[in-house]
Amino acid sequence: MTVTAPAGFEAAGIAAGIKRSGALDLAVIVNRGPSNAAAAVFTSNRAKANPILWSEQAIADGQAAAIVLNSGGANCFTGPEGFQVTHHTAETAGSALGVSSGDVLVCSTGLIGEQLDIEVLEEGVLSAVARLTPQGGEDAARAIMTTDTKPKTVVVEGDGWRVGGIAKGAGMLAPGLATMLVVLTTDGLVPPARLDEALRAATRVTFDRLDSDGCMSTNDQVTLMASGASGVTPDPAAFTDAVTEACRSLALQLQADAEGASHDITIEVRGAVTEDDAVEVGRSVARNNLFKAAIFGNDPNWGRVLAAIGTTQAPFDPYLVDVSMNGVRVCHAGRPDAPREQVDLTPRATHVLIELHAGEASATIWTNDLTHDYVHENSAYAS
Amino acid sequence: MTVTAPAGFEAAGIAAGIKRSGALDLAVIVNRGPSNAAAAVFTSNRAKANPILWSEQAIADGQAAAIVLNSGGANCFTGPEGFQVTHHTAETAGSALGVSSGDVLVCSTGLIGEQLDIEVLEEGVLSAVARLTPQGGEDAARAIMTTDTKPKTVVVEGDGWRVGGIAKGAGMLAPGLATMLVVLTTDGLVPPARLDEALRAATRVTFDRLDSDGCMSTNDQVTLMASGASGVTPDPAAFTDAVTEACRSLALQLQADAEGASHDITIEVRGAVTEDDAVEVGRSVARNNLFKAAIFGNDPNWGRVLAAIGTTQAPFDPYLVDVSMNGVRVCHAGRPDAPREQVDLTPRATHVLIELHAGEASATIWTNDLTHDYVHENSAYAS
Repeated sequence: MTVTAPAGFEAAGIAAGIKRSGALDLAVIVNRGPSNAAAAVFTSNRAKANPILWSEQAIADGQAAAIVLNSGGANCFTGPEGFQVTHHTAETAGSALGVSSGDVLVCSTGLIGEQLDIEVLEEGVLSAVARLTPQGGEDAARAIMTTDTKPKTVVVEGDGWRVGGIAKGAGMLAPGLATMLVVLTTDGLVPPARLDEALRAATRVTFDRLDSDGCMSTNDQVTLMASGASGVTPDPAAFTDAVTEACRSLALQLQADAEGASHDITIEVRGAVTEDDAVEVGRSVARNNLFKAAIFGNDPNWGRVLAAIGTTQAPFDPYLVDVSMNGVRVCHAGRPDAPREQVDLTPRATHVLIELHAGEASATIWTNDLTHDYVHENSAYAS
Repeated sequence: MTVTAPAGFEAAGIAAGIKRSGALDLAVIVNRGPSNAAAAVFTSNRAKANPILWSEQAIADGQAAAIVLNSGGANCFTGPEGFQVTHHTAETAGSALGVSSGDVLVCSTGLIGEQLDIEVLEEGVLSAVARLTPQGGEDAARAIMTTDTKPKTVVVEGDGWRVGGIAKGAGMLAPGLATMLVVLTTDGLVPPARLDEALRAATRVTFDRLDSDGCMSTNDQVTLMASGASGVTPDPAAFTDAVTEACRSLALQLQADAEGASHDITIEVRGAVTEDDAVEVGRSVARNNLFKAAIFGNDPNWGRVLAAIGTTQAPFDPYLVDVSMNGVRVCHAGRPDAPREQVDLTPRATHVLIELHAGEASATIWTNDLTHDYVHENSAYAS
């Protein structure tokens, strides 16, 4: 059910012919109302794709009636022609749905620097709009996949309302945002300002803390649309919690399907002075290729953890730090503790606990290991 | 001849038994004077190894009579016992050489978090001191190797004086400094302040611009010792040029021998507002795993260059940027230009030119590609 689990939404996912493989490659999700409230957060990369440039404008009024998403091409660094493709996609969808093109968001994902065929997009949008159904969420989740091996979906139940979501993303997973496309829906009656507030609170502690490979995309977009079709106005705190739960579930699904990864690594930092410090420390480890390669090799090389966190500005004394891996404290006060042979890194789920002993703040960063398959998939991506 | 090419220096490299393989693992380089002027720059990692903590103090007075370097163990995060090993190493060498232990620098490289055997070190230092010769530079260069496949050496001829050098480093190559040990010698008559000035000017544009894998070491040290044995006071500018030339040669030798690399990538950034901006832009590309994996696959994926530089704070318009690879401009003004098929990335030497069109400043960063072998070597390092 995914994005169509909340009342008021219809979706479709089709094979428009953008991907040469013939796989599903175009999704349309429509909000039938009564409300068209929406919010979105975008990549902080200054190199923004054309659909990002469009969607930033379209969402500015807090309203969106539909969103069109395609895989098979990022439509980034494709010049004015590329922007025309995005604009025409929104106009085609708006016209077919009887709404303003300014209420249609667009997302694209795939290779940077290649033009999309405007006619293929137009036919695809018309075909998808003709197949919209209240059961179309699963197809939509499949149509946005690139190197993903499985669709990512979530439904969270509220008190008389629901939050549903789909996500795609397997490479270029990094903060600000993690590189991906996400659509969240709710049938709660929630005004745009509240949607925006809940979405930013949720992404800050979920997608922004997923850092699979340190590479920031040009096409990230997380969109939240509210139909109000339940007639229920959710409690604000409960709504933020539900959106956060949906985002966390999708973020962990992205991590579990990251390109070539063999370990899902949870880096938990405790005892930092501030939460920002904890995030900086965790991220420095998540982005350290030597650490990531060691985990791939099932090697509890805690020296690489300390070498990584020593590059941060966060206030702590490296010679007071404890490091534990999968429950075994291998470093105590900056010195060897339990023998590294006691650590079992064969499970995919890997827990690294870093205790700074500098304060009371904590944060968790999710990342993956650096593997042969990561290198292979990303050296062959364009071919 | 290497570090013993300049007059006044003797060296030895021996197998002390630190490495289980029985390979050379300990080097001593002695400055016989008449001058003992010296300067050094150290890792900016806050997690500093014990030999760094020692050497920072020992060099503070601008004097050093000898330097002891070992491979086979980094002596980092080994607690007070580890510092004792370093201290005893300096005392043993000083006593055998008839100089103060405070004039003996120490460098270590190898795995973090494992103790060195203090008796093995002591015997090794005594044995090496007994074998010092004016021809010992080559052995010293071999004794500091870890995963290096070949020794790195250089000699630069001045006007009546010389600069010689050795270096080791293959992984953890990143700025501030690139991760490595380097010893430079000169027989020029140069006071400590001038040595320091020349060394900092040289490393700023050489080792600091080598960023093989973004990982900063805990043990980096570049040392420059002047014997004055030539009796010649070099022209200051000529001396800085010679030290810079020596550092550049060693930096490029490090790049060429980087762990698992199949491409030596020169990233040239032109048209930046400031040199710092150019460095930031170049470094963002050098640290982007997706770009590095693409180069491994001989894929001129310029979209990943733009996605990387879009994450920087440097002032420029992404939609004015040109990108060329090995002489073919594949991106002009943020749009596709020459077909990517025209780019031949099969040579090991790879040139990426990024023209920002924002100002007049430029900088060059050297890096390597991300390969299966890099992952393999760094996942198996500890075993």
